[in-house]
Amino acid sequence: MATIAIVAPGAMGSAIARHLIAQGARVLTSVEGRSDLTVRRARDAGMVAVAMHDLATADLILSIVPPGEALSVAEALASVLRQSLSKPVFIDFNAINPSTMQMVSTVLAGTGCEVLDGAIIGPPPVSGRQGPTFYISGDLRHRSDILLRLGLNLRLIDAPSGAASALKMVYAGVNKGITALGTAMLLASADAGCAQGLRQEMGESLPDILAHFTRSIPDMYPKAYRWVAEMREIAAFLGADNPAAGLFEAAAQVFARVAEDDVACGELASRLNNVLGLPE
Amino acid sequence: MATIAIVAPGAMGSAIARHLIAQGARVLTSVEGRSDLTVRRARDAGMVAVAMHDLATADLILSIVPPGEALSVAEALASVLRQSLSKPVFIDFNAINPSTMQMVSTVLAGTGCEVLDGAIIGPPPVSGRQGPTFYISGDLRHRSDILLRLGLNLRLIDAPSGAASALKMVYAGVNKGITALGTAMLLASADAGCAQGLRQEMGESLPDILAHFTRSIPDMYPKAYRWVAEMREIAAFLGADNPAAGLFEAAAQVFARVAEDDVACGELASRLNNVLGLPE
Repeated sequence: MATIAIVAPGAMGSAIARHLIAQGARVLTSVEGRSDLTVRRARDAGMVAVAMHDLATADLILSIVPPGEALSVAEALASVLRQSLSKPVFIDFNAINPSTMQMVSTVLAGTGCEVLDGAIIGPPPVSGRQGPTFYISGDLRHRSDILLRLGLNLRLIDAPSGAASALKMVYAGVNKGITALGTAMLLASADAGCAQGLRQEMGESLPDILAHFTRSIPDMYPKAYRWVAEMREIAAFLGADNPAAGLFEAAAQVFARVAEDDVACGELASRLNNVLGLPE
Repeated sequence: MATIAIVAPGAMGSAIARHLIAQGARVLTSVEGRSDLTVRRARDAGMVAVAMHDLATADLILSIVPPGEALSVAEALASVLRQSLSKPVFIDFNAINPSTMQMVSTVLAGTGCEVLDGAIIGPPPVSGRQGPTFYISGDLRHRSDILLRLGLNLRLIDAPSGAASALKMVYAGVNKGITALGTAMLLASADAGCAQGLRQEMGESLPDILAHFTRSIPDMYPKAYRWVAEMREIAAFLGADNPAAGLFEAAAQVFARVAEDDVACGELASRLNNVLGLPE
């Protein structure tokens, strides 16, 4: 039986655990110092809570945490893995930019464990729906094949470590950048008295983009606060000398405005819904 | 017979003239100081070249010029219209922001002519294809109805002067902003070795956006130099205190990079085509 460790049992991590367990894997996690909600979510998913040092007994360790925690997870595991006799493969699946991924690799160098660069694109797997795609770059020895056998939609990128992280950055840049642009322009149209004209014109000449906005903008409201940091990560990925970085500095500010609005009873959200012809 | 004056006989102006003439209108223009190409284009479209002061004999004067010339056209016509006995309606159809439109109105105030705020969205009319949509705001007395009778796809926006100009800004902001974002992200994916992954992932999870990029990005190459100024106009429309203005400052720089590339034998264009799976 394959044994997979997942750090941490968040929404994505626990949904993946549930899928792997249904495919016959044993899934370990550590809940040391985590909230009651997290402990319960891990248990509900069928994960086995173990001490940090026991995570090293897995075949693979998957790091699936918010981007800001990726490095501290690597640091915490580095000391465990250095002392361990078994040497699992460590896969970082976080939405970090390639230079942060390089730091994760450096932190884990000397543990004797192989470190792979991964990225997850798409929402958490739910039974009966197509799950996310798992990208891995630099896996020359196909060490991640076990995930393929466990039914994950896994794709190897034929490029060195860093390419999977970069893919996550550019994909998120397209997907969320369009949402930022739409949010900004819809609000501007409402301010300028031409919202109805914009919706009608887009319905005729850019119907796919209007449909995209109609899905993606309301979906963004509760996530805007997280996307602020994600946009800044993309700006850092592009680098200060790339003019496109400014697109994501501005996108971060657009999402910050929506995140603040959440506190202000969703006044912006109701204006955006109004432009989109959705219930306010 | 309706008489319409169009300043100037550029690609859009002459195509509209051709349509109006086919519908039975007489179309005047002035070619004073214009290039041979422009003079020929006006003649080929069937427009009647007259002196500036004779433009005042038309029922309507349509200003259709590059955004940077909108104000000087208004200034040139102001002195003509002030002295004229006939008082045609002046419609500014240029891609200018509402405050520039306000300046156009101010320049023409005191001429005795009504000034309307218009915008054209879509490519020039070509026989056998759906033409652009003509938006007009602030036309309380339906002075532009003559264009409707001449078969233009005309829409009145129920908002004061400025709303049609604003609509042009927000629509161009969506349409061209998406193109800037796609251009930046496709180039970043090529730099980072994940271009193939991006195309495959978008093909599956964002097929409409990929299709949009595949049309709009190659279409942009020869226009990038013009779009630099247009992006700056949108940034000015949003105002320095709107964080979204940064989106368009950055978009201007993305297009500037492509415009410079044109001189450098299209190296960027061939990389973009490569990411899109088009012939380089």
